[in-house]
Amino acid sequence: MRAEIISVGTELLLGQIVDTNAAFLARELAQLGIDLYFKQTVGDNPHRIQDAVRLAMSRAEAILITGGLGPTEDDLTVEAVAGALGEDLVRNEDVAAHIARFFESRGRIPPDTVYKQALVPRHARIIPNRRGTAPGIHLERDGRMVFIMPGVPFEMDGMMREYVIPYLAGRCGGALIGSVVLRVTGEGESAVEVRIKDLVRGTAPTIAPYAKLGEVHLRITAKGPPDEVREQLARGEALVRERLGDLVYGVDEQTLEMVVGEVLAARGLTVAAAESCTGGLLAERLTNVPGSSAYFVEGVTAYSDAAKVDLLNVPPRLIQAHGAVSAEVVEAMAAGIKARARTDLGVSITGIAGPSGGTAEKPVGLVFIGLAHRGGLLHRRLTFGSEPGRQGIRFLASQAALNLLRLHLLRG
Amino acid sequence: MRAEIISVGTELLLGQIVDTNAAFLARELAQLGIDLYFKQTVGDNPHRIQDAVRLAMSRAEAILITGGLGPTEDDLTVEAVAGALGEDLVRNEDVAAHIARFFESRGRIPPDTVYKQALVPRHARIIPNRRGTAPGIHLERDGRMVFIMPGVPFEMDGMMREYVIPYLAGRCGGALIGSVVLRVTGEGESAVEVRIKDLVRGTAPTIAPYAKLGEVHLRITAKGPPDEVREQLARGEALVRERLGDLVYGVDEQTLEMVVGEVLAARGLTVAAAESCTGGLLAERLTNVPGSSAYFVEGVTAYSDAAKVDLLNVPPRLIQAHGAVSAEVVEAMAAGIKARARTDLGVSITGIAGPSGGTAEKPVGLVFIGLAHRGGLLHRRLTFGSEPGRQGIRFLASQAALNLLRLHLLRG
Repeated sequence: MRAEIISVGTELLLGQIVDTNAAFLARELAQLGIDLYFKQTVGDNPHRIQDAVRLAMSRAEAILITGGLGPTEDDLTVEAVAGALGEDLVRNEDVAAHIARFFESRGRIPPDTVYKQALVPRHARIIPNRRGTAPGIHLERDGRMVFIMPGVPFEMDGMMREYVIPYLAGRCGGALIGSVVLRVTGEGESAVEVRIKDLVRGTAPTIAPYAKLGEVHLRITAKGPPDEVREQLARGEALVRERLGDLVYGVDEQTLEMVVGEVLAARGLTVAAAESCTGGLLAERLTNVPGSSAYFVEGVTAYSDAAKVDLLNVPPRLIQAHGAVSAEVVEAMAAGIKARARTDLGVSITGIAGPSGGTAEKPVGLVFIGLAHRGGLLHRRLTFGSEPGRQGIRFLASQAALNLLRLHLLRG
Repeated sequence: MRAEIISVGTELLLGQIVDTNAAFLARELAQLGIDLYFKQTVGDNPHRIQDAVRLAMSRAEAILITGGLGPTEDDLTVEAVAGALGEDLVRNEDVAAHIARFFESRGRIPPDTVYKQALVPRHARIIPNRRGTAPGIHLERDGRMVFIMPGVPFEMDGMMREYVIPYLAGRCGGALIGSVVLRVTGEGESAVEVRIKDLVRGTAPTIAPYAKLGEVHLRITAKGPPDEVREQLARGEALVRERLGDLVYGVDEQTLEMVVGEVLAARGLTVAAAESCTGGLLAERLTNVPGSSAYFVEGVTAYSDAAKVDLLNVPPRLIQAHGAVSAEVVEAMAAGIKARARTDLGVSITGIAGPSGGTAEKPVGLVFIGLAHRGGLLHRRLTFGSEPGRQGIRFLASQAALNLLRLHLLRG
C-alpha cells in the first residue's frame, strides 16, 4: 500500500510553523510498513487543495490530509476535498450535538460560526474528535482511502491512534517496517562510508548513513513479518559493528554524554572538566544527563591565562613557553582539574574557536583535548578548520573530548 | 514570482527528521515577497525526484531543492535533476580542488567517493559551499531558476544567505516585504500580548508574537515600496518599545548574550559565572559570542557541595543551614566567583533541574539566580515548575540570569 500526506495551511508556506505533524504521520506509516513516496504542502486555497488531492489520488491508495478544519473563513479543507471528490456537504446532527456538548461541558456558549464544522461530505464516515470540535473525515472512493484530520497536533494525534492507524493496520495486514540507528563518532562520513560501502548497497536490511555535526548515524531498516524484521536488524547491526568496532558509540536515542555517563556510573568513577575555548559546553553536556551528579563533580571554564593558573594550577612558564593552546597546557589543565576536584578523571579542552585569534602556526579550528587518569596523562591535537564556525568548532571539540573519555573507559 | 520548495530525503518520508529546512526557506521567501504555493517532499529515488521537479517547473519560476547532495550512493539529487532538465554531468575542477583543500586543511585524505560531488550539470553555475564539500547548483532553463542545496542546515543556510537570497532579491525588484523582530524577555507570552493587544490587531505594519522558550519574538512586517516599508517598520517598533520598555532586549538576530556582551565590552566591565544546576550553560552562552574573552574571565560549575566550598568559598554553614538551593547560597556563589576572578561582576545560578531531587518545599523548577556587583549583592527566586523538563529549566535559568545582568547594567 502506498500513502501520501497533504499538509494544508498557509502558515506552513510562510514558514511560521514547522510541520511536525507530517513527521509524526510519516513515522506512523513507516511503522505500519506502508510506503510513503511523496508529501505535499499547500496553502488554504481551494483550487490548490484540489490539485494536491487529485495528484495524490493518482499515485497513492491512502491519502492523509491535515489542517484547515477550524471554524474560520480560511479553513477550507473539507469543502475543497469534497469538491475534488464530487461530494456535496450536509449537516451531520451527531457532530452538531458533539459541538454543543463540548462547549457546554466547559461552561461556554458555542458561537454560530463553529457549527460550520458540522457540515461534512454526504458519504463521509465521521472520525470522532474527543479533544476538540472539528470532526475527522473518512471517505472511500475508487479504491482510495481519504482521511482528513485537524492540524492541531493534539487532536490529530488522538484520531490517528484511535481510528486511522487501527483502520490502516486492518487493511494492510502482517508486514511492518523496523529500524535501528547506530551512532558513530571519531571518523567523518566519507571515511565511515568507505568501510561499509558494500553494506550500504545491500537490501534486507538497508543501511543508510546520515551525517550530523561530529557524528554519523547509520540507520538499518528492514521490512517484513515481525520475526524476519528482528532477525534482519540484528544481522545488520552485527555486520556494522564488525566493521566499525568502537567507532559505534550508541544506539537509537542514546547521546554520547549518556553513554559516557552510564559507564562512569557503572564503574563508580568521577570526572571533572577544565575548559577554555568551549566555554562550559563540555560541562553542560556532561550534566545534561539526569543523575549526572553521581559522577560529575565540578567544571571550570578558565578563559583567561590567569584563570588557568589560579583555578587549574597550570604553571605560568608552560603558558609562556608553549602558549595557552598547546599539548603541554591541555595536559596541565586535565591534571589540574583532576587534582583540584579529587576525581578519578579530568578532561580538558583548549583551542581557537575563532572567528579571530588564529595565526599561521595556530589557526582557527586548532584544538587540543586532554585526559588525566590514574595511570597518567594523554592528549590529542585536532584541526577542524574555520568552516564549522565558532559554534561548530566548540561542539566538535566537546564531542572529541567526550569520545576520548569514552574510548579510554572502554579500553582502559 | 512564484517559488516551490522540494525537500529530498527518504529520512523525511520515514519521519526520522522534521523538515526545518523547508520552514527556513519558506520564511526567507516570504521576506522577499515571493509567493510559495506548494512544497513537495520526495525520497531518494531518481524517478520520483524527476516527477517532483517537472511538476514544480510547470507551476513556479523559482525552484529550491534541498537534500541528497552527500557523497554516498543514495545521494541522487543532482543526477536526477540534471536528468529532468536534459543535462549531462561533467567534472568541475574548481569543485574538485575545493574538496581536496577542504580535507587537506583538516589533515585528512579525501576518499575517492567524495569526488562524486565534483560532478555537476554541464550548464550549472556553482554555489560555493564554504562549510562543506558538496557544491550548490544553480541552473536556468525556460525562464525557470533551479537551485539545489545540501540538506545539512548549516551548509544550506550559508548558501541561501550568500547566494540565493541576493540573487532572488535582484530578480524580483520593486515592492518588497520588510520585517523586524523585537526580542522580549522577562514576561510570558500572555502578559506581553495583553500589553500590545490592539497593536497585534492592526495592519500596515502587522505585528505578530511568537512564543519561544524564555522569550517572545514580535515580528513587525510591512509590504510596499522601500521607503514606505522603512517608515512603517520604524513606527511599529516605536509603538512596541513605548509599551514594553526594557522588556525589549534586542532586535532581529541579536541574542541575549550578545546584548549583554556589547554592554560589558562598551563599559570595560568584566564578569565571571558560578553555576550549579545549569552545569556550564551560563558560561557557554556568555562565551558563544565572538570576542567574549574581552569581558568573560572564568566560570565555575560547582556541582557538588564540596566544589561550592572549594571553588567559590561558600561557607559550609550556609549550605547546612539553608541548603545548596537557597537565596543565601546563590548570593555567596556570586560573591565568591567575583572575588576569585577579580571581576566587576559575578553571576550565579543554583536550582533543581530535575527530573528527580525535588521536595515539597523545594520542587523541581525552583531556581535562584544571584548577582554580585560593586554596590553589593542581589538575588531572584524563580519557579519554572517541572513542565519545561530538565533542559528547559536549565535554559530558562540561564536566560533569567543573563537578563538580571542586562537589567542591572541598563539601570545601574
